[in-house]
Amino acid sequence: MPFDEPEVWGNCGLPSQISLGHYLFYRLRQLNVNTIFGLPGEFIMPLLDKIYSIPELRWAGNANELNAAYAADGYARIKNLACLVTTFGVGELSAINGIAGSFAEHVGVLHIVGMPPTSAQVKQLLLHHTLGNGDYSIFHRLASDVSEHTTVLTDLDICAQEIDRCIALAYKKRRPVYVGIPVNFVDALVDSAPLSIPLDLSMPPNNPELENEVVDAVLDLIYKAESPAIIADGCVSRYNISAELHELVELTQFPVFSTPMGKGAFDEQDPHFGGTFVGSMSSPEVREVVDFCDFVLVVGALLSDFNTGSFNFSYRAKNTALLFSNFVKLKNAMYPDLELSYLLRALIAKLDPTKIRYRPQPVPEVIRAKIKLMDNVPLRQEWVWSQISNWFQEGDVIITETGTSAFGINQTKFPSSTNCISQSLWGSVGYSLGACLGASFATLEEKKGCRVILFVGDGALQLTVQELSTIIRWGLTPYIFVMNNNGYTIDRLLHRKSNAGYHDIQPWHNLKLLSTFGALNYDARQIKTVGDFSALVNDENFAKNGIIRMIEIILPSMDAPPALMEKWLLDDTMDVDLSKRMLDWHDRDDGRGNKKAKSNWQSPASL
Amino acid sequence: MPFDEPEVWGNCGLPSQISLGHYLFYRLRQLNVNTIFGLPGEFIMPLLDKIYSIPELRWAGNANELNAAYAADGYARIKNLACLVTTFGVGELSAINGIAGSFAEHVGVLHIVGMPPTSAQVKQLLLHHTLGNGDYSIFHRLASDVSEHTTVLTDLDICAQEIDRCIALAYKKRRPVYVGIPVNFVDALVDSAPLSIPLDLSMPPNNPELENEVVDAVLDLIYKAESPAIIADGCVSRYNISAELHELVELTQFPVFSTPMGKGAFDEQDPHFGGTFVGSMSSPEVREVVDFCDFVLVVGALLSDFNTGSFNFSYRAKNTALLFSNFVKLKNAMYPDLELSYLLRALIAKLDPTKIRYRPQPVPEVIRAKIKLMDNVPLRQEWVWSQISNWFQEGDVIITETGTSAFGINQTKFPSSTNCISQSLWGSVGYSLGACLGASFATLEEKKGCRVILFVGDGALQLTVQELSTIIRWGLTPYIFVMNNNGYTIDRLLHRKSNAGYHDIQPWHNLKLLSTFGALNYDARQIKTVGDFSALVNDENFAKNGIIRMIEIILPSMDAPPALMEKWLLDDTMDVDLSKRMLDWHDRDDGRGNKKAKSNWQSPASL
Repeated sequence: MPFDEPEVWGNCGLPSQISLGHYLFYRLRQLNVNTIFGLPGEFIMPLLDKIYSIPELRWAGNANELNAAYAADGYARIKNLACLVTTFGVGELSAINGIAGSFAEHVGVLHIVGMPPTSAQVKQLLLHHTLGNGDYSIFHRLASDVSEHTTVLTDLDICAQEIDRCIALAYKKRRPVYVGIPVNFVDALVDSAPLSIPLDLSMPPNNPELENEVVDAVLDLIYKAESPAIIADGCVSRYNISAELHELVELTQFPVFSTPMGKGAFDEQDPHFGGTFVGSMSSPEVREVVDFCDFVLVVGALLSDFNTGSFNFSYRAKNTALLFSNFVKLKNAMYPDLELSYLLRALIAKLDPTKIRYRPQPVPEVIRAKIKLMDNVPLRQEWVWSQISNWFQEGDVIITETGTSAFGINQTKFPSSTNCISQSLWGSVGYSLGACLGASFATLEEKKGCRVILFVGDGALQLTVQELSTIIRWGLTPYIFVMNNNGYTIDRLLHRKSNAGYHDIQPWHNLKLLSTFGALNYDARQIKTVGDFSALVNDENFAKNGIIRMIEIILPSMDAPPALMEKWLLDDTMDVDLSKRMLDWHDRDDGRGNKKAKSNWQSPASL
Repeated sequence: MPFDEPEVWGNCGLPSQISLGHYLFYRLRQLNVNTIFGLPGEFIMPLLDKIYSIPELRWAGNANELNAAYAADGYARIKNLACLVTTFGVGELSAINGIAGSFAEHVGVLHIVGMPPTSAQVKQLLLHHTLGNGDYSIFHRLASDVSEHTTVLTDLDICAQEIDRCIALAYKKRRPVYVGIPVNFVDALVDSAPLSIPLDLSMPPNNPELENEVVDAVLDLIYKAESPAIIADGCVSRYNISAELHELVELTQFPVFSTPMGKGAFDEQDPHFGGTFVGSMSSPEVREVVDFCDFVLVVGALLSDFNTGSFNFSYRAKNTALLFSNFVKLKNAMYPDLELSYLLRALIAKLDPTKIRYRPQPVPEVIRAKIKLMDNVPLRQEWVWSQISNWFQEGDVIITETGTSAFGINQTKFPSSTNCISQSLWGSVGYSLGACLGASFATLEEKKGCRVILFVGDGALQLTVQELSTIIRWGLTPYIFVMNNNGYTIDRLLHRKSNAGYHDIQPWHNLKLLSTFGALNYDARQIKTVGDFSALVNDENFAKNGIIRMIEIILPSMDAPPALMEKWLLDDTMDVDLSKRMLDWHDRDDGRGNKKAKSNWQSPASL
């Protein structure tokens, strides 16, 4: 990686006094943060200078602040912590939607905001990038609603401690923490000695009495269950408790499903894995098990109920135990202040498998039987998602976007040791390309050699496209599958006015983006047919992630993964006429007004 | 313009009951809003549907929400009001930086946010795009810090009134007003009768006693002044008081200068116009007048003091009268609640020119003597900005970006009837391309045939580049001058670490952007020399805005308009060595490591 020549202090130890800016970055690097995201601005350049003198630390230099926040989020989902640096007012507000997403989805991001010098604030002088009313605290107040904690450094005597406290908090709580640093503090000298003491990142132990009560209650439900299921939700990855979850499954032999946000947290090659539970959008086989369970144990719960325009999500079992990151819900009883990993380990320690009533049943097959189609058949989402699992490899980092790809991925079966990144709860369109950049850095740092694979719709790509430039600049090599269905397809389906103008987008020459943004070594290709796809996934060279690749998959505009299609075809409230029209649409043209021969596409129901 | 086929209710009058959504858009159209900005999303599609059934109303369909907010701002600077529509949470937060800029700079934007149905909120069901904590009011609360007023419609009986009230408020106060509309309200039926009564957009008259006192005090200062100046600031354009200002100047014969935010508000061809006052960054000729005045009258004041990393701005005259949009400051006395246009008219009505002591003096020449350079000389900012005035035409709408172009434009002299758009106070990099889209729609609607001209740096272009796509999609035809000085030059100068890595950007093939984004009819060219530039500005065809044009002007990376360069060359705190190095940099290479013959560039001081 092209690190700048640093003024290296090396391993000989730091001077006894260093700048606050250096302190911040050395501490972050101690926590395995090697890439800093953001954009330069009026009040942060002295801070950014420090990065260049610290080995194994780089400034990503994003293309805009919202993309930078998305990138920090994607990075933290793999490395547990990220750092975003923006400038007062204009920078931080541009990023706030990304920070809110990290807050919603439990992702630890330290948001450093470069602030005007303390003197200006005290004297109420109007400055660039303000609202013109002398109020310097306003943006910090705005941030407090979407952060675990916010602070602005004001006391030089304790600012290093404050930085340590905030970093530890972001890490432990897996949520954004905001630290405003006045530009005149950056070069203030602080003692470097505290850096030789690692931060305490442990949570306090659970109250033993409370923990025992809950462990006993959960064990009771486990023992008595006759048709149970374990659901792996988002906080399994967030809190790195995959090993504990695996152990629990070994002990109980319960079938395991993941939520969309939990996908990849449990090894999908494990024989206990039965697929993705997506509430009312689950496959019939999964719904059959989960909706008719007498006991559902959700490990690493992020949500208990969830509604979107597309589906409802709730647990219908008679008995439920939801283990959130720091509280537990047993049916309707709420038990606060229980840290998840401690609780799980206590549960595992006390679990006696001989008391389990459940007799293991076969879990549903995740993958449907392979649909054999002829090479010249145009591609459809259903077929692509049913085939792509065969192309995934161990270690892959797979990223999907809000839209059809977030549903399609639930049809796939992951190899072991895969990470899945998807902003299913916050659902900000455009997140995925920024996250892909962040995840690419993280993968290079943590899972060197592993591939990063992005599925993004042509519509979503437009919101944050410039982050391709940063990916190119750093020589990162993700696979970028652009699902080109000619516009905002998920909205067409959601709103059932498929011909509304606002679903259309300006058609881009997506395959020219890489070269336009300065890529020299790249692969950009379009695939349209079953044959194209098969050739691609069987190509050994293509399987190696040596260069940046964009693969544009041409799909019809009213095409979506089966789960979505079935919902609309079977929905009571939908008029018969419209469902017929939607089927006709598939056969009438390719979504761009080009007539074609009648396709071989058949409703999944008829297979 | 490609309007969709509407279901036209035509001129036969509306049905007695119409949907709330229709009511909103009919009222906006009454206030001359013909283009609605934003992106579709889960809770706003029923609302967007209404746009397609109203003649002379279009949905812009922006590429992302921040760009859409910038576009709304640019539109409103010409049309006095704009409407932005985003979706709950993810959409509105993406836009908030743009809304904050509109708040800071007095721009009237109605921000409609599509919200979850009221039932979900009442039942605290978790929904997509929330923080996962059942709090639906949080984003609305965030918005209240950067809005004149925020509301969420809750009572169907008064929601049409509430909409009217909010539209009028945004218009009268020229500030963002936030209106949350639950998706289940959009189709609620309301009476259409109120639409036949135009909104009352007048401000209440000023308190006569207060107004008289202030008028007399200001007149006293006017009469006694021996070396006065009038400054036209940002609120002259915002509140459409150019005519009143002109009348005042005719009566007093005082010299007139504009602030950067007021540029274009006073006819620069008028013999009284003496140039742009940019505080410490002003040309010596302007500073000589303004800093040594005994009386400065600021009309349409936005700021009294202003500091950025680049310059300080304050009025040093012994006597000052600052007429803000709704209050007055006479020296240190503050007089609240005085509406500007009423006050001005009262002042004009009472003014007796015979009592004026001031004898008219010649004002400074705005344009320096033409520098004659040979055709093969590489372009420099100073020369470009000194020449471009000759190419401007009456009616032009000229937009600059935070960065070197915002300074360069102050060197130019505008023809009559020009609009200037620049976000000088809030200063969000990337604003200008979004504003260019908005201004292009507004120009087509209000100043048909007039040209829209954008000056944007290569660095700034990257933040919001996708809005080019929306410009192309609508067949709009601005001139986009990309000042390519290979990175964030203003930051290089601000921070004086010109070689810091974070000033560099990934170099794009900017001239390929238009075609990559699907443009078919376009002009994309690069100019590098004095000869290239001269040929361009003398080309009659080029002067006509029949197609979208991108002109990439290649400039050295340490080049900036003279005002900035002089500051850094003459700055006491700057070491001599660095200033010499900066001069050497000019001659060493073209900023990209390419050796070149020694240029003819000379320090402005030596001319």
